[in-house]
Amino acid sequence: MLFDIEKLQKQIAFLVEVDKLKQILRKTSLIGMNRKENSAEHSWHVILSAMIFHEYANNEVDLFKVIKMLAIHDIVEIDVGDTFHYDKTTKKDLFVQEAAAAKRIFGLLDSAQHDEYMALWQEFENRDTNEAKYAAAVDRFIPFVMNSHNNGGSWTENCITVKQALDKNAHMQEGSKTLWEMAQTMLTDCHSNGYIDKE
Amino acid sequence: MLFDIEKLQKQIAFLVEVDKLKQILRKTSLIGMNRKENSAEHSWHVILSAMIFHEYANNEVDLFKVIKMLAIHDIVEIDVGDTFHYDKTTKKDLFVQEAAAAKRIFGLLDSAQHDEYMALWQEFENRDTNEAKYAAAVDRFIPFVMNSHNNGGSWTENCITVKQALDKNAHMQEGSKTLWEMAQTMLTDCHSNGYIDKE
Repeated sequence: MLFDIEKLQKQIAFLVEVDKLKQILRKTSLIGMNRKENSAEHSWHVILSAMIFHEYANNEVDLFKVIKMLAIHDIVEIDVGDTFHYDKTTKKDLFVQEAAAAKRIFGLLDSAQHDEYMALWQEFENRDTNEAKYAAAVDRFIPFVMNSHNNGGSWTENCITVKQALDKNAHMQEGSKTLWEMAQTMLTDCHSNGYIDKE
Repeated sequence: MLFDIEKLQKQIAFLVEVDKLKQILRKTSLIGMNRKENSAEHSWHVILSAMIFHEYANNEVDLFKVIKMLAIHDIVEIDVGDTFHYDKTTKKDLFVQEAAAAKRIFGLLDSAQHDEYMALWQEFENRDTNEAKYAAAVDRFIPFVMNSHNNGGSWTENCITVKQALDKNAHMQEGSKTLWEMAQTMLTDCHSNGYIDKE
């Protein structure tokens, strides 16, 4: 055997564990469907979106790094569950719980890969780098696409107003002014069509 | 407006269309669950697996390219459906149908992005480059992980033998001898545990 079997077994255990992300349901529904999407298929959707929208990043970004971040950005939800974007500030100790989850899940890997993925996850959370800002912008833009194609979708279902959506997603413009401009148009259209209130 | 709105609308239409990949069911089940996995969440799982297993690629590969390929490798299933790996040779004109699907779906984008993604898809299908070989190896290895953690899973359900699994997946070794070695161990274990027949 020409490889470190113990290391490979750890990697397989990690990939078996993260299979659970397919069971974590979000608030958004599939477009035109009655089923809520899960965080694994959402992760795929935002990875592809980051590829497609690359030209709209405000600054030059390392797209490879953006994609790697997006591949792991929601993994902590396996322990903590999906937190509705509009509940985040009310959830006590959310970051502490998520950090513990990251430590446990990436801890299934050997220490070099643990460190690599913890750093990526932390970078996404901190939203300080151009890559993290762009990744976050795409992650926030996709629910706008879903909801605007679902007659208001999770906004309407949860009585989210235009004002709330603007306030909670304004950081999108740090990563992409273009996507933020489009997002605002989508909100205005949803309001004009009577799906969401102004405030 | 500082961007080409028509281009952005095409990109959004593409991302809305590919949302349908979340509805395409595969033969494999989620680990320990009764639900079949869909091709969108599978795509995420193989992207992350390609990142984790990078060191096991036989040759130096551009992992960024591998990930981009894996993000779009199953998109044609939106039109053609998922084809069970063991039925592929019996399905007439499969490649012609898949190529038409790729043309239609990537054709939702502007011509530069259409060309870029058609080329990526074609490269994955042709399996001639190191990147395509490694991407295909990971794409084939993950069902081994799922089935070996599901008491034989889709192999048992579809009466697939060790011999069939070896024959249909032998190309895995072109991308990663390590993953192929591990895959064979998994098959042997499944047989020893009575989940699948030898031939």
